[in-house]
Amino acid sequence: MLAVTILGNNSALPAFDRHPTAQVVTMEDQIFLVDCGEGTQMQMAKYKIRRSKINYIFISHLHGDHYFGLIGLLTSMGLLGRTQELHIYAPPPLQDIIGLQLKVADIELAYPLHFHHLTAEGVILREARFEVSCFPVYHRIECWGFCFREVRPLRRVNPEKARQNEVPASFFDRLKWGENYLRKDGVLVDNLSVTDPAPKAKSYAYAADTLYDERIAEQVRGVDLLYHETTYLKDLGEQAGKRFHSTTEQAARIACIAGVQRLLIGHFSSKYEKLQVFEQEARDTFPNTELAMEGVTYKI
Amino acid sequence: MLAVTILGNNSALPAFDRHPTAQVVTMEDQIFLVDCGEGTQMQMAKYKIRRSKINYIFISHLHGDHYFGLIGLLTSMGLLGRTQELHIYAPPPLQDIIGLQLKVADIELAYPLHFHHLTAEGVILREARFEVSCFPVYHRIECWGFCFREVRPLRRVNPEKARQNEVPASFFDRLKWGENYLRKDGVLVDNLSVTDPAPKAKSYAYAADTLYDERIAEQVRGVDLLYHETTYLKDLGEQAGKRFHSTTEQAARIACIAGVQRLLIGHFSSKYEKLQVFEQEARDTFPNTELAMEGVTYKI
Repeated sequence: MLAVTILGNNSALPAFDRHPTAQVVTMEDQIFLVDCGEGTQMQMAKYKIRRSKINYIFISHLHGDHYFGLIGLLTSMGLLGRTQELHIYAPPPLQDIIGLQLKVADIELAYPLHFHHLTAEGVILREARFEVSCFPVYHRIECWGFCFREVRPLRRVNPEKARQNEVPASFFDRLKWGENYLRKDGVLVDNLSVTDPAPKAKSYAYAADTLYDERIAEQVRGVDLLYHETTYLKDLGEQAGKRFHSTTEQAARIACIAGVQRLLIGHFSSKYEKLQVFEQEARDTFPNTELAMEGVTYKI
Repeated sequence: MLAVTILGNNSALPAFDRHPTAQVVTMEDQIFLVDCGEGTQMQMAKYKIRRSKINYIFISHLHGDHYFGLIGLLTSMGLLGRTQELHIYAPPPLQDIIGLQLKVADIELAYPLHFHHLTAEGVILREARFEVSCFPVYHRIECWGFCFREVRPLRRVNPEKARQNEVPASFFDRLKWGENYLRKDGVLVDNLSVTDPAPKAKSYAYAADTLYDERIAEQVRGVDLLYHETTYLKDLGEQAGKRFHSTTEQAARIACIAGVQRLLIGHFSSKYEKLQVFEQEARDTFPNTELAMEGVTYKI
């Protein structure tokens, strides 16, 4: 199970009841927060995302529309009695900013808060069932994309075959991990005979604020879902380049070159009230494109 | 014309679609922003408060629910092309926080931003028609209340009497300021004969987060409208004291002692979904009490 829920799909200036960037990635039993614009904690309440389930937060860069909601979320977690560890992956200066804000408020968080500084591309978090890596994107200040990958998805137990072979249900979890079962009568039940192959490992890549750069396609090659910013429609390519942002057509071109399955577009400029034409323009180049809409969960 | 519009009436943890503290005080042609919790710029858009009209911002203290929305508002003002000066009155460390956030984002605001450090009680802003003063309140960290006073309200022109005395409409503005009119025939028209007395100067005091302290009553004596926090109902007086907050009954007692005209209560704890009992309890002690409700303008 891998999915992304959009909490904010707008660029810097909130408009038309759209919010600055924030996304929630759900992978297995983990919820990851990716960027955290102002008002993210209110959006989480609105869309019933449980703050307490978040253990990892990834911040792409230190423009405010991607992190001004973080300090409020962190202090609210404290007020709600959080005690479990929280890990933040972000450009190094974020630690100073958060530290200063806590200090002047005379607040000591009751939970351990760990900052992990983003300094080089590569895997930044590896657990038994997933890994997260970061890669550079190309914005006015240092900015990172993130790639979430399932690793070693588990085989699926075929309950009928398992029962026919007298494997007890209590052993099913171990079957998933590939173990054979030794029956009491000495017969060894081969794992492959009672399980189906694991589903393909899924992947999601988040290309934060960036201008068009084909090096990004290399970083996200073949992912199941790519989020790529599209601040502007294609007629504003020059403005996009000057401001280190991308157009619909450029995002779609990256999706083509990278050979991804689906493309999700967002970070829409406040100059646009209606979004449908973003979808149309991107689909001209990459048909399997969807708009990132707030409150919607995109399953992978 | 003096009025206050509530943008956020909740305490630190946003809940029940209530927002952290922010208020807009309208005095003559000025709009003052008082505190600026997370999401204030979205609340301003919702309630049609024009960001461009704000030239003065007052921050009571550096707990996040009173200022986390400020940096987002400041950067949005920049994106909207603001060029006129903006003045912020706040505890000194705020300047460092905002400065650091702008620096890491590599943003230079296109408008002049002036910080005025709150360090002692007294008048902090004086213009021809109004003045603003600050006074200490008693919270876990340094915290200030603000008092907004009209000064020298203008006399009201009586158009009928003025016309009878052949004063041209182009002179009416000078009549308001108390000038006499010299007619072409040499007759001096006495100001008092063609104007009515100025209305009483109005005043509004904002007592931010504080525990019960009767020194506050001295500071806000006789104001037309007092806002006083009531984080808790009266049965939680002990908890209120420990957390440097007030109850309904305590706020109402301050209003009584201070001899104010009306009391507005807010900063409700997230533990309370319904607010009606706040009003009831306060009215038991001070009948002329109203709940501070988001989106509502209280005229003075």
